[in-house]
Amino acid sequence: MGALAQDDALERDTVVLKFGGSSVADAERIRDVAARLVAAREGGRRVVATVSAMGETTDTLLALARRVAPNPDARELDMLLSTGERVACALVAIAVHDLGHEAVSFTGSQAGILTDAVHTRALIREITPVRVVRALEEGRIVLVAGFQGFSRETMDVTTLGRGGTDATAVALAAALGAACEIYSDVAGVFTADPRLVPDARRLEQVSYAEMLELAASGARVLMLRAVELARAHGVPILARSSFSDEPGTWVHYVEEMEQPAVSAVTHSEDVVLFSVEGVPDRPGATAALFQAIAAEHVNVDTVLSDGGSASPGLSFATAHDEAAAARLAVERAAAALGALEVEERRDVGSVSVVGAGMRSHPGVAAKMFRAIDREGVDVRLVSTSPIKISVLVDRSAVPRTVRGLHAAFGLGEEAAEGTAN
Amino acid sequence: MGALAQDDALERDTVVLKFGGSSVADAERIRDVAARLVAAREGGRRVVATVSAMGETTDTLLALARRVAPNPDARELDMLLSTGERVACALVAIAVHDLGHEAVSFTGSQAGILTDAVHTRALIREITPVRVVRALEEGRIVLVAGFQGFSRETMDVTTLGRGGTDATAVALAAALGAACEIYSDVAGVFTADPRLVPDARRLEQVSYAEMLELAASGARVLMLRAVELARAHGVPILARSSFSDEPGTWVHYVEEMEQPAVSAVTHSEDVVLFSVEGVPDRPGATAALFQAIAAEHVNVDTVLSDGGSASPGLSFATAHDEAAAARLAVERAAAALGALEVEERRDVGSVSVVGAGMRSHPGVAAKMFRAIDREGVDVRLVSTSPIKISVLVDRSAVPRTVRGLHAAFGLGEEAAEGTAN
Repeated sequence: MGALAQDDALERDTVVLKFGGSSVADAERIRDVAARLVAAREGGRRVVATVSAMGETTDTLLALARRVAPNPDARELDMLLSTGERVACALVAIAVHDLGHEAVSFTGSQAGILTDAVHTRALIREITPVRVVRALEEGRIVLVAGFQGFSRETMDVTTLGRGGTDATAVALAAALGAACEIYSDVAGVFTADPRLVPDARRLEQVSYAEMLELAASGARVLMLRAVELARAHGVPILARSSFSDEPGTWVHYVEEMEQPAVSAVTHSEDVVLFSVEGVPDRPGATAALFQAIAAEHVNVDTVLSDGGSASPGLSFATAHDEAAAARLAVERAAAALGALEVEERRDVGSVSVVGAGMRSHPGVAAKMFRAIDREGVDVRLVSTSPIKISVLVDRSAVPRTVRGLHAAFGLGEEAAEGTAN
Repeated sequence: MGALAQDDALERDTVVLKFGGSSVADAERIRDVAARLVAAREGGRRVVATVSAMGETTDTLLALARRVAPNPDARELDMLLSTGERVACALVAIAVHDLGHEAVSFTGSQAGILTDAVHTRALIREITPVRVVRALEEGRIVLVAGFQGFSRETMDVTTLGRGGTDATAVALAAALGAACEIYSDVAGVFTADPRLVPDARRLEQVSYAEMLELAASGARVLMLRAVELARAHGVPILARSSFSDEPGTWVHYVEEMEQPAVSAVTHSEDVVLFSVEGVPDRPGATAALFQAIAAEHVNVDTVLSDGGSASPGLSFATAHDEAAAARLAVERAAAALGALEVEERRDVGSVSVVGAGMRSHPGVAAKMFRAIDREGVDVRLVSTSPIKISVLVDRSAVPRTVRGLHAAFGLGEEAAEGTAN
């Protein structure tokens, strides 16, 4: 399937390119981004780009707001944080002008990105990119400030929360009938993290379903939210590096019949394991615990309920930045349910195998646990989806678990590529 | 006239407060500004505030843009620079919320500040503060991002150039029928710079006409542009310190009959003196030189034409940041007029006496030159207006010239205050 890059269904007339904060961290990188936009324009395509705030700008602004007030007002936080992307967009537009091309930058509101009125985590409702389309028709390169929109109801600026700039890019691409290219410091989707697995290969393509699982289980290439949007609207995404010309990985509708059982091994160290002992053995007790967690908006990743034993226990994993809220929730539940003993462990990590072909290959789990066993690694928690199996292991065992699984499923071999495509 | 502060014509129901960049330079100062707004609100007034960008933000953004491209596109520069004031406004609003009051921040466009479409130095055309008025009616403290507006014609963000935040405050006050308080690091208008003249007194009030001359001749309290706007719309301005509770100076319509001849002595070291020799002695030669200067948008302050001599010379003064453009203009004129010899001197300063009563006191100039002569100071250039006389002297002679004039006109004496009010 070497002809993939020439596929007309993927290479559309209009392209929305997205660059993260590290790609626009200083004047030189901003000029690099501008050069890339000009190259795409000179290649004959209509070019839109969304960029994140420069480097650590958003974190710096947030820290400043917290020095001003411990709990900043959400509407004003959006007024504040939305400036970071505007700065980056204006600077890229300035750099494009300097290269002799016409460019224009728009705020989220000027670009017609309408959201609900939920400040700091607004959802995109509709895109009416009238000014974007007009500027494209005039031959301009269009910059759109990522991560933001505005609410027609309140006429206020909103921000989209985590992954907001990726979501902006995909939503714009959907509205414009465009393809989307998302640039980051990773050159695409790999069969495993190349820093752990020297023979890890870049995948030429993955399906939306696989990408969702990969993003959820540690692949840093794309944000879950953008992949969901892309799947819903059929937007093809090319994930590639802003620091090289490697071809990247296409995320799109993939004919799954010919997929191998396993496409990639991912891992994450952003895991905190909670083990709760002494949950009363009566109906509704576990539900009450998870209701308390849900009330704190904590995403619980992996759950193991030990309901069969005399003293029932329950384990769940969550991300580091949600651990404090999770602990709070468990403590609240403790007050309601009677004393619970809570253990919190941070010396753990998760390793997952992901593959759209997995559902039709029943032997995947058996093969996976044989490989883990061969490495002498203890599994603390298991969770599965139709196309993913995750295990929680000691942090120190993550690298050899990844390497063992990558070898066991033959992901480093050229033969695997042949099977996949 | 001690009852001035209770004057109902000055203390209106609504007040627009303006804070410069140094007043919002860090989290602590932002909290101080918020406390001042809350105090004004709790005093029963409706409160609007415009703030500049924090500290050196605007200069930092401008330097960044120039690293990206030597001549940044003007529209994009406005997109870039307008973010600084939005950040500051949002942070002040966050601080007001934290003090238990409702606040809302608006961009220039949300506040209805309509300008022409001349980027980086737009002029305010109209203010339609619908959202500001509604928020005030809801009891909120309203923050408006200074220095910016938007063009209805292009729907683009514009910035107002130098003095733009002061102009925003005065224009808003005019639209709202409000008084205006402009906070800076100076506690009002003084009879001379207190750093040079220990017995300099704060003036309780000055007329618009006097303030225009004071601002033009070195007083850093208010920007010329804001004073012009205030005079045109009859907006009373209180100039005061953001770092103290001193009462400040009112700028408004002052009954001039009782004014003393001279209100204050000002000085400026922001002066470059150009002396041009060899201007051809034919009609239009001097005009051609000044046309060339005007084409570079250089403001020429003081002009002395030595038209009577055999080899006509011409001198003019300009501000430091316009000196390069002035030199360019003179060199262009040289090409057209034949060789000119240009001397550029930076070791000079200007000293001015300003007073609305001056026009009815013919002895002011004579008294002034006697005092300068007593100090043994050479005058290089003189310029006058109906209410101002300026002299250009050696930089080193500025302090003793200021002190000599302050004493000669009796400005430090309590008696002067009595006469003035």
